[in-house]
Amino acid sequence: MKADAEQQIVDSGLDRTLARWCLGLAGNPRIALRLWNGAEYCFVDGKPVAEVEIRDRSVLLGLLRSPSMAFGEGYARGLVEVHGDFYDFICEVSAALSRRSARFYRLQKLGSQLAALRSNTLSRAKDNVHRHYDLGNDFYRLWLDERMVYTCAYYEHPEMTLAEAQLAKLDHVCRKLRLQPGQTVVEAGCGWGALALHMAEHYGVTVTAYNNSHEQVKYAREQAQLRNLSDRVTFIEDDYRNIVGRYDVFVSVGMLEHVGLRNFRTLGSIIARSLKPGGLGLVHTIGRSNPRPPDPWIARRIFPGGHIPSLGEMAAVFEPFRFSVLDVENLRLHYGRTCRAWLQNFEQVADKVRQMYGSEFVRTWRLYLAGSSAAFRYGTLQLYQVLFAPHGNNDVPWTRRYQYESLPAAE
Amino acid sequence: MKADAEQQIVDSGLDRTLARWCLGLAGNPRIALRLWNGAEYCFVDGKPVAEVEIRDRSVLLGLLRSPSMAFGEGYARGLVEVHGDFYDFICEVSAALSRRSARFYRLQKLGSQLAALRSNTLSRAKDNVHRHYDLGNDFYRLWLDERMVYTCAYYEHPEMTLAEAQLAKLDHVCRKLRLQPGQTVVEAGCGWGALALHMAEHYGVTVTAYNNSHEQVKYAREQAQLRNLSDRVTFIEDDYRNIVGRYDVFVSVGMLEHVGLRNFRTLGSIIARSLKPGGLGLVHTIGRSNPRPPDPWIARRIFPGGHIPSLGEMAAVFEPFRFSVLDVENLRLHYGRTCRAWLQNFEQVADKVRQMYGSEFVRTWRLYLAGSSAAFRYGTLQLYQVLFAPHGNNDVPWTRRYQYESLPAAE
Repeated sequence: MKADAEQQIVDSGLDRTLARWCLGLAGNPRIALRLWNGAEYCFVDGKPVAEVEIRDRSVLLGLLRSPSMAFGEGYARGLVEVHGDFYDFICEVSAALSRRSARFYRLQKLGSQLAALRSNTLSRAKDNVHRHYDLGNDFYRLWLDERMVYTCAYYEHPEMTLAEAQLAKLDHVCRKLRLQPGQTVVEAGCGWGALALHMAEHYGVTVTAYNNSHEQVKYAREQAQLRNLSDRVTFIEDDYRNIVGRYDVFVSVGMLEHVGLRNFRTLGSIIARSLKPGGLGLVHTIGRSNPRPPDPWIARRIFPGGHIPSLGEMAAVFEPFRFSVLDVENLRLHYGRTCRAWLQNFEQVADKVRQMYGSEFVRTWRLYLAGSSAAFRYGTLQLYQVLFAPHGNNDVPWTRRYQYESLPAAE
Repeated sequence: MKADAEQQIVDSGLDRTLARWCLGLAGNPRIALRLWNGAEYCFVDGKPVAEVEIRDRSVLLGLLRSPSMAFGEGYARGLVEVHGDFYDFICEVSAALSRRSARFYRLQKLGSQLAALRSNTLSRAKDNVHRHYDLGNDFYRLWLDERMVYTCAYYEHPEMTLAEAQLAKLDHVCRKLRLQPGQTVVEAGCGWGALALHMAEHYGVTVTAYNNSHEQVKYAREQAQLRNLSDRVTFIEDDYRNIVGRYDVFVSVGMLEHVGLRNFRTLGSIIARSLKPGGLGLVHTIGRSNPRPPDPWIARRIFPGGHIPSLGEMAAVFEPFRFSVLDVENLRLHYGRTCRAWLQNFEQVADKVRQMYGSEFVRTWRLYLAGSSAAFRYGTLQLYQVLFAPHGNNDVPWTRRYQYESLPAAE
């Protein structure tokens, strides 16, 4: 008995130390920890935002070794439970993490470059896309807006719904590109086709849209048929590297994240050969305020092969080809709100998703959506829209007032 | 006689080849060459834009070796003369040069990095600034606008005069920064003080403005006295690296060009320590579409120690400190027009400037102003206004509509 009690004291002393380290690594968020043996630790004054229950010592040790991976895997499998509002908890941790000073800049930049050595070959790119986007259109239809737009919305006015803000985003992109009837557009990575269809329907342009995802292209083609747009929008199931032809406009919304740093220059060369001398281009992408290697859990469970670039890293797309970057807009907070709206929709249908894919899947996606929203609000994630023109094109907008003059096209 | 004639044929055959090479290096602009011996060469169909007279064979050889330096020095000394409209000639050459493909990207990037090894120490920075900006306020007053603004104007409406466009620029910067009465602003590199004085007078803020140029600070202080703003604007004759205090707003218009690539991170650290967590910053600078080493003639005669960065190179200011870049606007064509307006003013007073500084100075500045204008219109020069916020500041503008809503403050 005595030995047992002593052992318990030793254990709890060790656990307490580990718990303290663990919270310290996370920037000391205002959360409490409860361990597998019922021991509770809280090192902050006042009421914690949430209590995190860790049901296995191996998870606690894992959190010290590889926090993101251990939390992600532990939460997905139910070895970690969060008591309290999940979104508030994620925001609290993100804010705490980000209060830590910007250390290791050079090291993280190097990490970003090393991670980039892995190249997304054509087949690997197809496989990466398949793993995320071919989960099934039925799944995404459950919680995306009616147009199936799976990129940052533009809440032009704060009271907009998600669907309204997605429509506003489509128009914001179209306005920036000054689309004129009769122009030709090539889109790299078109998702379920919402932007391509919108451009053709409301701006009178002809669009050729590339996408590696079989499920998405199938859906997009059906939509084109339904909306009588098949003669003006062509969906091609292929890699952006196989784009052929020359166009007035190049647009890519939410694809650069999947290209991989090592292929940025290749993408630039594709844009350079696809864009007419008097053309305009727009790349819309998640970015970072500073270079960092991909988050290991996100890379394993959500976006294999992805790389979220800093603006400096994005230069590899534009600078070798002397594109003139006309305009960069950061919509970081809009993406924070978009992801939160997705999370809210997702929670509404969580039971249905659980029936389709199981509990681990639901918990993985909850963490991904909540974590993304928080990272845009408190972390280093940014959302860059980059408008650019080929070198030597002087037929570019004189000021940006035109982006704010016309109202969104009526539906 | 016979030997002489043969020699002449050999000479003229050689000269013709050299002339052809020389024009080929410049991308075959539509110009004619006339040599010291009266020989004329024109390899284009139709009427050439101008005829360039080269009065010495050494200049022709120099043009093959180091085109920018040889042309700059030759033109300044009168060994090269341009017959025809000088501005049209410069534009023609710039456009021809820029039609050449974007070769040697990696080599030029390396050149940019090697050139950056030279560091602008405090004393060297002071000396560099002295050589350009301390030419005398009387000189700049002859051809700048009434506010003495020596940076890119913002031609909000195409019919604006230079003075109106400079005022519009000051307001454009102030609007972007959402200045509120009572805020504190620190300005790095304030020229003759126009922006600092405008901010204090029309936006109710208190400004601390740094500048290394003795002549400029003297002038700015006099203006503050004259306009009864001395209590709200403090001009400090010192390097940006000696900025002390914390401010709501950091602004720098036209200084980054002089900082030198090697000091970009230092500038970033100064901004990071000067800006309050809820602050906003703006850096306005000449940039390039792609990294290149400084032009050797410009570096020798106009801006010693300067470096014109690409957007990717500018990341060294922002990324190590996790600044969130909110908005980048490229005003390239506005600077093309600004420089042309300066050139036109300059030509009006060229005789007076010749009396003050001599003919070589006049020709040097003519080439610099015309060449700059052309490089913004046809070359790789860009003008970037970068708006940014410290990491974690979520009190940032939701959209950019606010930049286009209010009219410029009345004078």
